[in-house]
Amino acid sequence: MRELTPRQQQLHTIIFGTHTPGGKRFDVILICAILLSVFVVLLDSVTVVAERHHHWLFTIEWIFTILFTIEYFVRIYCSPARFKYMTSFFGIVDFLSILPSYLALFLAGSSYLAVVRLLRVLRIFRVLKLIRYLSDMNVLLRSLFNARRKILIFFFTVLILTTIFGAAMFLIEGPERGFTSIPKSIYWAIVTITTVGYGDISPQTPIGQILAAMVMLLGYSIIAVPTGILTAELAQEIQREKQSVVCHACGKAGHDMDAHFCSACGAELPAVPATE
Amino acid sequence: MRELTPRQQQLHTIIFGTHTPGGKRFDVILICAILLSVFVVLLDSVTVVAERHHHWLFTIEWIFTILFTIEYFVRIYCSPARFKYMTSFFGIVDFLSILPSYLALFLAGSSYLAVVRLLRVLRIFRVLKLIRYLSDMNVLLRSLFNARRKILIFFFTVLILTTIFGAAMFLIEGPERGFTSIPKSIYWAIVTITTVGYGDISPQTPIGQILAAMVMLLGYSIIAVPTGILTAELAQEIQREKQSVVCHACGKAGHDMDAHFCSACGAELPAVPATE
Amino acid sequence: MRELTPRQQQLHTIIFGTHTPGGKRFDVILICAILLSVFVVLLDSVTVVAERHHHWLFTIEWIFTILFTIEYFVRIYCSPARFKYMTSFFGIVDFLSILPSYLALFLAGSSYLAVVRLLRVLRIFRVLKLIRYLSDMNVLLRSLFNARRKILIFFFTVLILTTIFGAAMFLIEGPERGFTSIPKSIYWAIVTITTVGYGDISPQTPIGQILAAMVMLLGYSIIAVPTGILTAELAQEIQREKQSVVCHACGKAGHDMDAHFCSACGAELPAVPATE
Amino acid sequence: MRELTPRQQQLHTIIFGTHTPGGKRFDVILICAILLSVFVVLLDSVTVVAERHHHWLFTIEWIFTILFTIEYFVRIYCSPARFKYMTSFFGIVDFLSILPSYLALFLAGSSYLAVVRLLRVLRIFRVLKLIRYLSDMNVLLRSLFNARRKILIFFFTVLILTTIFGAAMFLIEGPERGFTSIPKSIYWAIVTITTVGYGDISPQTPIGQILAAMVMLLGYSIIAVPTGILTAELAQEIQREKQSVVCHACGKAGHDMDAHFCSACGAELPAVPATE
Repeated sequence: MRELTPRQQQLHTIIFGTHTPGGKRFDVILICAILLSVFVVLLDSVTVVAERHHHWLFTIEWIFTILFTIEYFVRIYCSPARFKYMTSFFGIVDFLSILPSYLALFLAGSSYLAVVRLLRVLRIFRVLKLIRYLSDMNVLLRSLFNARRKILIFFFTVLILTTIFGAAMFLIEGPERGFTSIPKSIYWAIVTITTVGYGDISPQTPIGQILAAMVMLLGYSIIAVPTGILTAELAQEIQREKQSVVCHACGKAGHDMDAHFCSACGAELPAVPATE
Repeated sequence: MRELTPRQQQLHTIIFGTHTPGGKRFDVILICAILLSVFVVLLDSVTVVAERHHHWLFTIEWIFTILFTIEYFVRIYCSPARFKYMTSFFGIVDFLSILPSYLALFLAGSSYLAVVRLLRVLRIFRVLKLIRYLSDMNVLLRSLFNARRKILIFFFTVLILTTIFGAAMFLIEGPERGFTSIPKSIYWAIVTITTVGYGDISPQTPIGQILAAMVMLLGYSIIAVPTGILTAELAQEIQREKQSVVCHACGKAGHDMDAHFCSACGAELPAVPATE
Repeated sequence: MRELTPRQQQLHTIIFGTHTPGGKRFDVILICAILLSVFVVLLDSVTVVAERHHHWLFTIEWIFTILFTIEYFVRIYCSPARFKYMTSFFGIVDFLSILPSYLALFLAGSSYLAVVRLLRVLRIFRVLKLIRYLSDMNVLLRSLFNARRKILIFFFTVLILTTIFGAAMFLIEGPERGFTSIPKSIYWAIVTITTVGYGDISPQTPIGQILAAMVMLLGYSIIAVPTGILTAELAQEIQREKQSVVCHACGKAGHDMDAHFCSACGAELPAVPATE
Repeated sequence: MRELTPRQQQLHTIIFGTHTPGGKRFDVILICAILLSVFVVLLDSVTVVAERHHHWLFTIEWIFTILFTIEYFVRIYCSPARFKYMTSFFGIVDFLSILPSYLALFLAGSSYLAVVRLLRVLRIFRVLKLIRYLSDMNVLLRSLFNARRKILIFFFTVLILTTIFGAAMFLIEGPERGFTSIPKSIYWAIVTITTVGYGDISPQTPIGQILAAMVMLLGYSIIAVPTGILTAELAQEIQREKQSVVCHACGKAGHDMDAHFCSACGAELPAVPATE
C-alpha cells in the first residue's frame, strides 16, 4: 500500500468512501448515471427509436463513456493499492463497463454490451448503508460457496446425461425431424431437462416421445437436487447467523456472542445479539 | 378514534363485526355478491355470451356496483377511525373494486378490471372463524416478510443478469431472428430463465443456442435460491409456531408457553399449547 | 359388523387378506389382470391398432369388466361391514373401475375412462408386504395432510392472482391477439404462472410482454411457496418417524420408544427402534 | 481373488491405481482420450463437417475404439477379481463404451452411442484426489438412496395420474385436435405436469383447457414433493457428515468422533473432526 498525497486522500474519500456526505452524494449520482446510460443503450436498440433519435442517443452514450473513463482513471490514481483495485471484482467490472463503447469503433454493435455497467449498481448496498442487506447477501453467497462442490457435481452429471440422451434422440428421431446433429440434440435435451420446453424441436415418433417423457420425469426429479442442496446449506447459514452478532458498520455476521469488535472492520459490536 | 352514535355502532357491528349472527350473515351475503359480480364480468367478456345477453349482464353489473358503492360509504360512515380504514389494505381494495365500473364511463373496457373485487373475498377467513387458517396465513406472511430482503436481492440479481444476457443475444441472433431489440431480448431472457419457454422467440444460431443452454442451466439452478430461502424461513416459523400458544379468538400465534392473555385481542389463552 | 358365515369368512381371507398364500396369489393375479386390461384400453385407442383388432380388444375388455364386476359383488358379499367397504377409498375405486364399460353402452367413448382401474394397483404395497413403503407413504400423506391448510390458502391466492392478471391481459392484448375472453386469459395466466408456457397464446404488445414478464417472475418466486411448506412439514415428519418405533406387521410408525404393541393392528413391536 | 503375477501387479498399479505417478499419468491421458473421442463423435454427426471430413473422423474413431478395446482386456487381465470388475459399475461402462463402434458394423448409426464413454470420465474425482468432492458425492448419493422409496412412490403416483388425465383429455379433445390416442395424450400429460410445455399438442376446447389448468396446478404443487423429500434427507445427511470424521485418503465420511482408522480403506483418520 502506497502513501496517498492529501489530494489523493481527498479524492479517495469521495470516490471510494461512503461515510462522508460528499462520498455518498458521489455514489448516488454515479448510480443514477449508470442507470441512465443503460437506459440509453436499451433505447438505441429499438429500431423505431433509433431511426429518429440515433444521433442524440449516440452523443449521450459517448458523454457517459468519457465520464466513466475519467472516473476509472481517477479511481486508479487515488487508490492506495492500485493493482489490488484493478484485479478486484468491482475493478474488473469498472473496466468492462467502458470497454464496449471503445470496441464499437472497430466492431459495430459491440456498444450494446455496455449494459455490463449494470453490475456496478451492486455497489448500491454499500452506498445506502443497507447493512442487513449486505448481511443477507453474505448469507446467500456463503451458502452458494458451501454448496459449490455439490452444485459442480450436479452440473457435471447433467451435462453427461444430456449428451447421452441427445445422442440417443439423434439416432431415434433423425435429421428430418429437427434433430439435425448431436450438438443440436444436446441443446434439445437441455431445453427439456430444465423444463423450459420451447417446442422449436420436439419428438414426433412414439419411441422418441417415450424417451422424451423419461427425460422430463428425470428433469422433474433432479430439479430437486440443487434446491435440496441449497436449502440445506441456507438453513444452516441462517441458523448460524441468527446465533451470532452482526456488525452494524460493515454487516459482517458470524461473530461470537461475547465478541466486542468486528473481525472485518474493527468497529465496536452491539452488546445484544441482533436476533431481530 | 371518534365516538360512534348508537346507530353507527349498530351498523359497525353488522358490517365490520363477525361475532353476531347479523354480522356473519352480512359477510356471507357480501362474499356471494362479490363472486356473482365477478362471474358476470367474466361472462360479459365471452363474445358469444356478450352478443346475446350484454344488456342483462350490463344491468346486473351496475346494480352490484351501486350496492358496493353504498356499502363503501356506509363503511366509512360507521368506522370509528375513518382515515385509518380508508388507507388500510381492505379499505383500498374496497375502493378499487368499485372504481373500474365508473372509469368505464370514460374509458371503454376498463370495467373488466372489476375482477379486483376478488381480493375482498380474502375476508372469508375472518368471517368463517377459520382460526387455524388465519394462523397458517400468518406463518406464510411472516416467512415472506422475514425473507423479503433476500428475495429482493435475488430479483435484483435476476434483472441484471437477464439484461446482460438479453443484450448478448440481441448481438448474436439479431433482429432477423426475432430478437428485434434489447428490451425484447430481455423479455426472451426472462421467459427462458423462469423456464416458461413459450417458443415465440427462440435462438437459431449455434452460438445463440449455446448461450441459451447456459441461461437455462443457470435458471435451473437459481430456481433453487428463492425456494431455499423460503423453506429455511418457513421451517423456522413452523417450529416457532408449534412451540407457542395460539389465541383461539383471533388466531395470533407466538405467545409464550406461560402467557395468559392474547397480546393482540386480549382474549384468554388456552392453558395447553396448541400443538395439534 | 355382521357375523360372517364360514363360506364368507373363507372368501374374505382370499379376497381381502394378504397373509395367506391364497390371499397373496389372488392379489397378484388381480394386479396383473388390471394392468393387462388397462393395456388393452390403451391399445384400443390407437387408431392403427383399433382398425385391425378392435373386435378382439373389445371382447377382452368385456371379459375383464365382467370378471371385475363379479369380484366387486363378491367383495360386498363377504365383507363384514358392507357399507363401510362401499364408501371406503378402495370401495369407490373398485366401483368406478367397472362403471365406464357399462356407461359406454349409452355414451360412446366413455369406456376409455376404465383406466381409472390403475388406482386399484395402489394395493400393491399392501400385497407385497412392503412395510417400509407403506411407512414412507404414510410420511408423505401425513405431511400433505399437515400442510393442507397452507396449500389451500396458496391455491386460493393463485386463483385470485391469475384472474386479475387474466383480466388485465385481456384489456391489454385483446381478442385479435388470441386473448379472446377473460376465461381464456385466465387459462393463459395459469399456463404462464406455472411455467408450463405452451406458447399457443403469448403476448405480442410491449406492455403485454412487460406484464407477462412480471407474471413469470412472480410465478418463479411463488413456486417456492408450496415447496417450502412441504419441505418444512416433511422434515418434521421424517424426524418424528426416525425417533419412533415402526410396526413390522402393518407399517404404522409413530409409536413411543417404550410401546410394546402396535396401536393400529395390535402386533408386537420390535424392541429396538427402527432407525435403519 | 487370484494371486497376481509381478507383471499383472505392475499393470494393475498403473491402470487401476491412482497413487503412483504412473497411475495418475495413465488416468489423465485416458480422460483426455475419452473427451477427444466423444468430441470426434459429436463432430461426425454435424452434416456440414461430416461431408468434408468423414474419412478422417472415421479413422480417428476407430483408433480410439481399438485402444479402448485393448485397455478393456488389459484391465480384465490384470484385475485380481475379474468377474467382480466386469460386473461393477465402471466395468459395465467400460464395456458399453466400446460396444457401439462394433455394433455400427451391422447397425448403421449406432456408433453415435459411443458418447456413453462420457460416463467413464466420472473416474476424474478419484484420479484428481478430490476427496471433498468424493465425500460430497457420497452425501448426494446417500440422500438419494435414503429417499429411493419415497421417490418411487412419487413416480408411481405420477404415472397413474398422467394415465387417467391422458384418457380424459383423449375423450374431451379427441383425435382431430392432436390427441390422436391415449398413449399420445399420456405424453401430453407428462409434458404438462412436468411444466415442460412444448406446445406441439395443446387443448383447444374450453373444457379441455379447464382440465389442463387443473393438471398444471397439480403439477405445480407436486413439483414440491420430490424437492421436499430430497431436501429433508439432504439436510440430515449434511448434518450427520459435519458431525463425523472424514477420511483424507478415500473420502468416506460418517466415522465416529473418536474413531482412529477409516472403516473403508484403513487409513489413519485425522484427530480433529473435518468441520471445514
